[in-house]
Amino acid sequence: MALDRLKSVASHLTGTVAPPHPFDPLSNAEIESAAQIIRTAKGKVAYNAITLWEPRKQEMMSWLADPEQAKRPKRVADVVGIVPGGKVFEALIDLEEKTITKYEELAGVQPLITMEDLQIVEHVVRKDAKVIEQCVLSGIPASDMDKVYCDPWTIGYDHRFGSDVRLQQALMYYRPHMDDSQYSFPLDFCPIFDAGKQEIIHIDIPEVRRPVNKAKPNNYHPATIEKEGGYRKDIKPINITQPDGVSFTVEGRVINWQNWKVHVGFNYKEGIVLNNITYNDKGTERPIFYRLSLAEMVVPYGNPEHPHQRKHAFDLGEYGGGYMTNSLALGCDCKGAIHYMDAAFVNRAGESTTIKNAICIHEEDAGILFKHTDFRDDSVIVTRGRKLIISHIFTAANYEYCVYWIFHQDGAVQLEIKLTGILNTYSMNAGEDTKGWGTEVYPGVNAHNHQHLFCLRIDPNIDGPNNTVFQVDALPGAGEVGSAENPYGNAFYAKKTKYSTVEESLSDYDGATSRTWEMSNTNKLNPYSHKPVSYKLVSREVPGLLPKPGSLVWKRAGFARHAVHVTKYHDEQILPAGRHVPQTSGEPSRGIPEWVTSNPSEGIDNTDVVLWHTFGITHFPSPEDFPIMPAEPMTLLLRPRNFFSKNPALDVPPSYCSTPSQILGGKGVVDATDRESKLVSGKACCK
Amino acid sequence: MALDRLKSVASHLTGTVAPPHPFDPLSNAEIESAAQIIRTAKGKVAYNAITLWEPRKQEMMSWLADPEQAKRPKRVADVVGIVPGGKVFEALIDLEEKTITKYEELAGVQPLITMEDLQIVEHVVRKDAKVIEQCVLSGIPASDMDKVYCDPWTIGYDHRFGSDVRLQQALMYYRPHMDDSQYSFPLDFCPIFDAGKQEIIHIDIPEVRRPVNKAKPNNYHPATIEKEGGYRKDIKPINITQPDGVSFTVEGRVINWQNWKVHVGFNYKEGIVLNNITYNDKGTERPIFYRLSLAEMVVPYGNPEHPHQRKHAFDLGEYGGGYMTNSLALGCDCKGAIHYMDAAFVNRAGESTTIKNAICIHEEDAGILFKHTDFRDDSVIVTRGRKLIISHIFTAANYEYCVYWIFHQDGAVQLEIKLTGILNTYSMNAGEDTKGWGTEVYPGVNAHNHQHLFCLRIDPNIDGPNNTVFQVDALPGAGEVGSAENPYGNAFYAKKTKYSTVEESLSDYDGATSRTWEMSNTNKLNPYSHKPVSYKLVSREVPGLLPKPGSLVWKRAGFARHAVHVTKYHDEQILPAGRHVPQTSGEPSRGIPEWVTSNPSEGIDNTDVVLWHTFGITHFPSPEDFPIMPAEPMTLLLRPRNFFSKNPALDVPPSYCSTPSQILGGKGVVDATDRESKLVSGKACCK
Ligand SMILES: [Co+2]
Ligand SMILES: [Co+2]
Repeated sequence: MALDRLKSVASHLTGTVAPPHPFDPLSNAEIESAAQIIRTAKGKVAYNAITLWEPRKQEMMSWLADPEQAKRPKRVADVVGIVPGGKVFEALIDLEEKTITKYEELAGVQPLITMEDLQIVEHVVRKDAKVIEQCVLSGIPASDMDKVYCDPWTIGYDHRFGSDVRLQQALMYYRPHMDDSQYSFPLDFCPIFDAGKQEIIHIDIPEVRRPVNKAKPNNYHPATIEKEGGYRKDIKPINITQPDGVSFTVEGRVINWQNWKVHVGFNYKEGIVLNNITYNDKGTERPIFYRLSLAEMVVPYGNPEHPHQRKHAFDLGEYGGGYMTNSLALGCDCKGAIHYMDAAFVNRAGESTTIKNAICIHEEDAGILFKHTDFRDDSVIVTRGRKLIISHIFTAANYEYCVYWIFHQDGAVQLEIKLTGILNTYSMNAGEDTKGWGTEVYPGVNAHNHQHLFCLRIDPNIDGPNNTVFQVDALPGAGEVGSAENPYGNAFYAKKTKYSTVEESLSDYDGATSRTWEMSNTNKLNPYSHKPVSYKLVSREVPGLLPKPGSLVWKRAGFARHAVHVTKYHDEQILPAGRHVPQTSGEPSRGIPEWVTSNPSEGIDNTDVVLWHTFGITHFPSPEDFPIMPAEPMTLLLRPRNFFSKNPALDVPPSYCSTPSQILGGKGVVDATDRESKLVSGKACCK
Repeated sequence: MALDRLKSVASHLTGTVAPPHPFDPLSNAEIESAAQIIRTAKGKVAYNAITLWEPRKQEMMSWLADPEQAKRPKRVADVVGIVPGGKVFEALIDLEEKTITKYEELAGVQPLITMEDLQIVEHVVRKDAKVIEQCVLSGIPASDMDKVYCDPWTIGYDHRFGSDVRLQQALMYYRPHMDDSQYSFPLDFCPIFDAGKQEIIHIDIPEVRRPVNKAKPNNYHPATIEKEGGYRKDIKPINITQPDGVSFTVEGRVINWQNWKVHVGFNYKEGIVLNNITYNDKGTERPIFYRLSLAEMVVPYGNPEHPHQRKHAFDLGEYGGGYMTNSLALGCDCKGAIHYMDAAFVNRAGESTTIKNAICIHEEDAGILFKHTDFRDDSVIVTRGRKLIISHIFTAANYEYCVYWIFHQDGAVQLEIKLTGILNTYSMNAGEDTKGWGTEVYPGVNAHNHQHLFCLRIDPNIDGPNNTVFQVDALPGAGEVGSAENPYGNAFYAKKTKYSTVEESLSDYDGATSRTWEMSNTNKLNPYSHKPVSYKLVSREVPGLLPKPGSLVWKRAGFARHAVHVTKYHDEQILPAGRHVPQTSGEPSRGIPEWVTSNPSEGIDNTDVVLWHTFGITHFPSPEDFPIMPAEPMTLLLRPRNFFSKNPALDVPPSYCSTPSQILGGKGVVDATDRESKLVSGKACCK
């Protein structure tokens, strides 16, 4: 990895490579350059993040429109760190001028917890006398402290400790053997770690004590499986190959595939960021989205007992979906012909680091794209589809989130998220009542109810930046059976409600009307339907935030109060729960609520808007989810509606096509069926 | 095909093959035998259907429990036909005794419309003087009647004509050239065809006339695509191969795959029927579903003008999802290593016919099944999943429905349906207002709003036939922030409501509570969670029936009034809109409403129950859906909850697995990554 870094620095310095695309994440060299500038000016600081300060949109739009002539947006580094004494600083570095253009120290603010921050806590708890005392009370000998583990979480917010001191709460576990899954051995107390002092400042101890679980370990590793009967032996390989290569091209970080063009960015908080998504519609490159990302998420837990109300991780804003990203393995995480992209970050010391293979880009067969048979003569067309998948996986302590951005040939963009990994667990005594707030997934193991709520940030650019959002509800027509306007009672229609102001746009999902939302360019009508060109958000996994108004998570995760918020575009409004999420009290609520409140009547009709969509699932655990959870998928679609004048995939070559005259004439039929497919029986096929 | 039939007859007669499984569809030989018995007794009749009369459940359960000792259910043919004069008959034939055990003639009832029934109408309309007159009025010369086409639909119900005469309505189209898609040239009048007289008895003519479209043809065939710039050339092949064969075995029609066992049946109405679905849980074969099928569907159209209220096709009950099934092609409809099953039917003359390759059975890679990385040391497990897909595709005039029954290794059963094919269209004049009841998808072409509502019949057998259905709603806990029971306001839980009687079970979807339904065996508790073993229906595409109460489709498609009905099991209750659907008036409503009304307080707690689930989508067409529609997917899941004591897929071999001690010791890591995957760059991979 050191070698990679050196090479990257060298190629940058020799100037033989093209300048980065303005959307490109900072390279290792740029990160180190930014750190060096800070170091020179400010001395030794602890780096929290050095990331691309994204070009201002207006400037960027000009450049995208005319990259030859327009001024190229400058490369600017956005730096967050902690100065000695614990104060947070924010800085902007002009990487071309090598100057600090902004520097500010902030009080009462905590930037996210890095992997390095997390790693420290376990070492400290193992040596803390009071923690050892609690372990002994739990039934763990003091000599076994090397078997005590913790998942450090940000404290969320605890009014006893406020926001000035940087804190983590240590969710405690035990492993009888170092290879045992600790999640079957949760401990009942919760130390609070002070990152400044590097010590435990408090331990939350429940009134009812729950000694360490005496059940036998519950593992998923080969040794365990072999003991329990071994692996199944009846799975034959499926090979997926692309002997002639893939159907996409990569230029820097711009992917070109099946008329789609998209710049693949990446940052430490959101992970994958897709920019400047366009579709080449018969020679015209039509903009669709300026920027798409998963911008925030929150996982509130539903057990009302102290201190579980603090369990509501903002995995992106508090830890970073980019920072926690897995290095992916070929033929394992990803199958087929794969293009990887790495991710560059800064470490606490100001050195650049690299996650190899952070992003996986590959194609998959997508089954039937369209088909029709004429029942008269069996003339038929069958066309198979493809999809392009841009994905990453991140590990948030116990859980893993697999994020798949999927492009389809029919103009749809799909976001699929798979949840896997391990349930967060808490201890319970034999015979203890979960009271419905959790499920005993293994003897002595209580997995609490929780929600996974994601906030998708959509910056639409539907044939240009001036867009309007409509709520669309499927409703019966007016008039009962027998009325003049609806004589047979069968009328129904799509009721469209325009959101003219920010406050009008605060809306929830309505399953009864199959509610969708359309992002439209009302300045441009479809030539046939005369309706505005649009993309429709079709999302069906949209639970509301179950914690009550006024609760801590309701205050802190304001974005989750509604399924949709629409705001006018502002460059600095990227992160729905605010820029620095750990230890926010929610008073006032950061991010979307403050933007909404600051100007609720701000106009959002036919202007540059952002649609924030909160979706997800409510997870009531069951034993099937343990000791490791089979991936639970959830998905949503962004579908073109009245955007194209016809099915944009008609020119995808069919697998088989015959017309009535070919059937009649007995010739001319297109037979491009895949010659690799085989009958299981081994016999030749019948057609 | 004739040869196939002869072979099949021969093998049956020589008795060299095992007797059919009682769930097996009737073979060609059995069909011909049944027809011969009817023919001998009744003379010449028109056959509508000869299908398996499914074994009575009690008898079948006994046989399944002990196939060696228990009495083998008899093979019985269920025959429907039309005697000279037009009366419908129903008969049961004991195929072993070769006797007619039931014979009944019915008045005022119409069995479904077969493909042969459909084929006739176009020939008749082309020669009908009044139709020719209307065509001329529409601007089509009388000499061009060979360019006039019709999609015959059952009439639905029209009070002017009642149910005694067998009718079809002819949705009229024009093709400038025989290879042109007719759906861009809809005609505005609607002839009514009398199948008995074989003539047009009436034409519905709208007040506002709409001459045939003058727009240029709008096609999707190669000649058109070539003219418009040709096919895209940048799609490289993706090959999917299973060099060592597939992971499933086939014994007769029983598929054994990854602990699952399922009998794959097929009939002319429902298409695929899955019976006796079991999961081998560490040596114990646990029953889960006795029978799963798509049992009915309805496609109501939302234009209130006469006669569009009649457009609400029951594609299964009125035409037959089995009868309309496509013969599938290898490497085209299906990719990879495929096992096909054929389907045998009777034709009008009483001969057996075969749809080759009616059912496709294959495996697919399913991406990551589970993954977890320990952030401390990067010890990791990645296990890839598989799925087994049992599918068929049927063509209902303009539309195609692709039905995929998908089995997962984690115990879930998924139903995915893709809609493709062509929109049903109606003519519109230039400048005409669609009034919101449809969309102009091409000049002069109005595609009306419609819904696709499917009824999934679930006969659960969760560790035995005595099951109970619970409605599950995700709800906040009682008490506001600061209350004793919910001090922090974060409490939430799964509220379970037991359905004790049939009428209690009539329920709708609730998006606000992420409503699901659990089928539970309350006699058996999960050893860890102490909750009943269950399967949960997770379905999110659940629009209500938009036509009003009292409307024709509301009366006829009673099953669609609620998302869920639960009934006590009765052998004869299979078809939710009744046995003979065409020309039912809905007075009284057939199928589910009559069963519910007959005994609304019938107990359904801890007994043999059936859950009927109506789901689907509301389709507001747009130009992207035309001239042929990219497949629109919808899906639902049946997931085990508290059914297994742990993740049942732990013994699926991982692709990669390392434990903390292996990381420390540097050996023992499992690396079973697929060696076929490649980097796009061609470079060796980094890991
Ligand atoms: Co979860
Ligand atoms: Co449709």
